[in-house]
Amino acid sequence: MSKIVNVKFNVKHYKYDKPFHITGSISSETRNVEVEVTLESGAKGYGEAAPSFRVNGEKVEMITALEAFVRDLLVGLDVRQYRKIFEITDKLFAVPSLKAAIQYAILDALGEETNIHVYQLLGGALKEIETDKTVGIDTIENRVSEAKKIFDSGFRVIKIKVGENLKEDIEAMLEIYKVTKGAKYIVDANMGYTPKQAVEFARQVYKAGIDIAVYEQPVVWSNVEGLKFVRFHVHFPVAADESAKTKFDVMRLIREEAVDYVNIKLMKSGISDALSIVELARSANLRLMIGCMSESSVGINQSVHFALGTGAFDFHDLDSHLMLQEPEFRGKFIQSGAKMIGY
Amino acid sequence: MSKIVNVKFNVKHYKYDKPFHITGSISSETRNVEVEVTLESGAKGYGEAAPSFRVNGEKVEMITALEAFVRDLLVGLDVRQYRKIFEITDKLFAVPSLKAAIQYAILDALGEETNIHVYQLLGGALKEIETDKTVGIDTIENRVSEAKKIFDSGFRVIKIKVGENLKEDIEAMLEIYKVTKGAKYIVDANMGYTPKQAVEFARQVYKAGIDIAVYEQPVVWSNVEGLKFVRFHVHFPVAADESAKTKFDVMRLIREEAVDYVNIKLMKSGISDALSIVELARSANLRLMIGCMSESSVGINQSVHFALGTGAFDFHDLDSHLMLQEPEFRGKFIQSGAKMIGY
Repeated sequence: MSKIVNVKFNVKHYKYDKPFHITGSISSETRNVEVEVTLESGAKGYGEAAPSFRVNGEKVEMITALEAFVRDLLVGLDVRQYRKIFEITDKLFAVPSLKAAIQYAILDALGEETNIHVYQLLGGALKEIETDKTVGIDTIENRVSEAKKIFDSGFRVIKIKVGENLKEDIEAMLEIYKVTKGAKYIVDANMGYTPKQAVEFARQVYKAGIDIAVYEQPVVWSNVEGLKFVRFHVHFPVAADESAKTKFDVMRLIREEAVDYVNIKLMKSGISDALSIVELARSANLRLMIGCMSESSVGINQSVHFALGTGAFDFHDLDSHLMLQEPEFRGKFIQSGAKMIGY
Repeated sequence: MSKIVNVKFNVKHYKYDKPFHITGSISSETRNVEVEVTLESGAKGYGEAAPSFRVNGEKVEMITALEAFVRDLLVGLDVRQYRKIFEITDKLFAVPSLKAAIQYAILDALGEETNIHVYQLLGGALKEIETDKTVGIDTIENRVSEAKKIFDSGFRVIKIKVGENLKEDIEAMLEIYKVTKGAKYIVDANMGYTPKQAVEFARQVYKAGIDIAVYEQPVVWSNVEGLKFVRFHVHFPVAADESAKTKFDVMRLIREEAVDYVNIKLMKSGISDALSIVELARSANLRLMIGCMSESSVGINQSVHFALGTGAFDFHDLDSHLMLQEPEFRGKFIQSGAKMIGY
C-alpha cells in the first residue's frame, strides 16, 4: 500500500514583502516547485524545491523539465525503502533543491501512511525550536530600524547580511548593537569579503565589545584556505555555507580544519547529505546551524521537521516564509513568533 | 501511549557448539543480557547486550549492576523521541554493548507500537543480506575441514581467524584455498600480528595467488600508525575492528587514512555511533562490513535490521548465533542458509 503511484510537480510563485538584498543578489520574488508524491493507499507526501542559481547553479526550468524523468524514477518504489530512494535520488546532485523536495516528500508520504510525524521518524529529539530573523543589506538607517523591529517583535537571534561595503557593514553592526542589546547575532557575508576584509570586520566589531555567535561564509565558496585563515584570525566562530553543499564538501572542511560551524540547508544537500553532515559534525565536534533559501511554509516545514527530529542545531535560520506573501500557512508545525513547535 | 513504563534485564546463558578460538581468547560459553522495554500501550521492545571484556573492557556483572539506574534513566521517556534517548544513552559509553541493547530495544518497541519493522524505520534499503561463517584457530587439519564444511554447506564468504602463529596461518590459508575455490575470504588477525608479520602474511598469500576481500585488524587496536603501515604495504583492503569502536575513533582513522574498511559492530558502537560511522564512511569513501560478538539470535537480529535498513555493508559477518546452542530462534528475520531476509 506504500508504493508510489504518481509524482507531480507544481510551480508556485511568491512575492517577497519587500526586496531582499544580500551580497550580489536582490530578490523580489521566487518560483518554487512543489513535489507531490501519491501512494497506492491514496496517502500523499509534499516537498518543495526552492532552487538557487547563485548557490547551486539551478534554474526552475531545469527542475520542471525533469518531471517525467522523476516520475519514471520513482513510480513503483515503496516509501518504506526510503534509504534506497535516497540512494537513487542522490544522482540528482545537479539539482539539489529537487533532490531535497523529493526526499522530503517520500518521508512525508511515509509519515502520512504510518501516522508518524516526520520529525518523529527522524528521531523526535526536540519539541520546539526558535528561528532568527534576517536584516538584509540596505541603508544604515534602514538596517538599524529593521533590526530594532525584529528585536522588538520578540526575536532573540538576529541575522545580519553584510559583504558589499566593509565600512558601512561595520557602522551598521555598531548601530544595530545599540538598539538590540541582549540579542545574539549571526553575521553573514555571503562570500562578499576577501579574507583580510573579513578579519578587519571581525576585529572592529570585537573592539566595540560586540559578540558574534556565528560568522557565516565571509569569503568565496571555493576559498577553503581563506575560510581557515579567517577562522584562525578572528575571535568568532566561522561557518561555511556556500562552501558546504555536500557531505564530501564537509568532509574536506573537517580534514582541513577550515571552520567551526556548518550551515546545513536542505536545498543544498537534500535529506540524505544533510543526515550525513549531522553525523560528521557529531564525530568531528563541528557545530551546526540550519538555514534556508526562499522556501515557503511548505519548504520551511521540511527543515523544521529535520531540525526537530535530529536536534542537531545550535541556531535555526528558517525565516524565508516570514518574508514571502503566502495565501495560507501550510507547515505541519505551529509558528508562534520566533518559535516553531511540533505537534 | 509510547512512553516507557518499565525496563527489565534478563541474563541468558548460551554454550558454543564447540570452543571458539581466536587470537588470545577461547570461548565455550557466553552470558548475554537481554533488555526488555515496556511501553504504556503494552508494546515491548527487546535488545541484547553481548559484553566483550577483550574488546570493550566490559563484564556482564557491570551491566546487570546498572538495571535500576537504566530503569530510572528511561522510564517516562517516549520512544518516538528516539534521538533524545540515543543522546541520553550515549553516556553509557563504558558499557557499549548495553548501550546497543537499550537503543535497539527502543527502536524495536517503536516498531511494535507503530507496526513498522525496524529495518524500515532505518530506511529499508535492502530485503536480504548474506552472512559469512567463521573458521576459528585450530590445527591446520581441523581449520581446513571446517572451511570445507562451511563452503559445502553453501556459504560463499568464509572468515578465517589468524594471528597466533604466522607460519601455520599461512599454511592453513594456502590449504583452505585449495578446497574452497570460488569463496571470498575475510582474514581476521584480531590484533595478533606486528605490522611486519601482517605484511609478511599478506605477501605470502598474495604470492600463492589468493585474494583476500578484507584483512581485518592485523595489529593491536592502539597502533593506528601500524594499521596505516599495513594498509600501504599489502595488496588487500585493510579493516579496523578493535581500533574502531566509536565515531571519534573512525573520524581519526579517516583523518590518518589508516584503513580501507571499518568493521561496525553494534556491541562496540550502539545504534547511535553505528549510524554516525555509516555516514562517515559514505562521506570519506570508506568501505564497511558489519560484525558481531557472541550474540544469540536476539542480538544478531539487531545487526540484521541495521544492515537491511541502512544498506551500508559490503560484507556481513553475523554468524555468532549459528555457533551457539539456543532453545529457539528468536530473530525477526528469516535465516535461510547464509541468507538473512527481512519480512
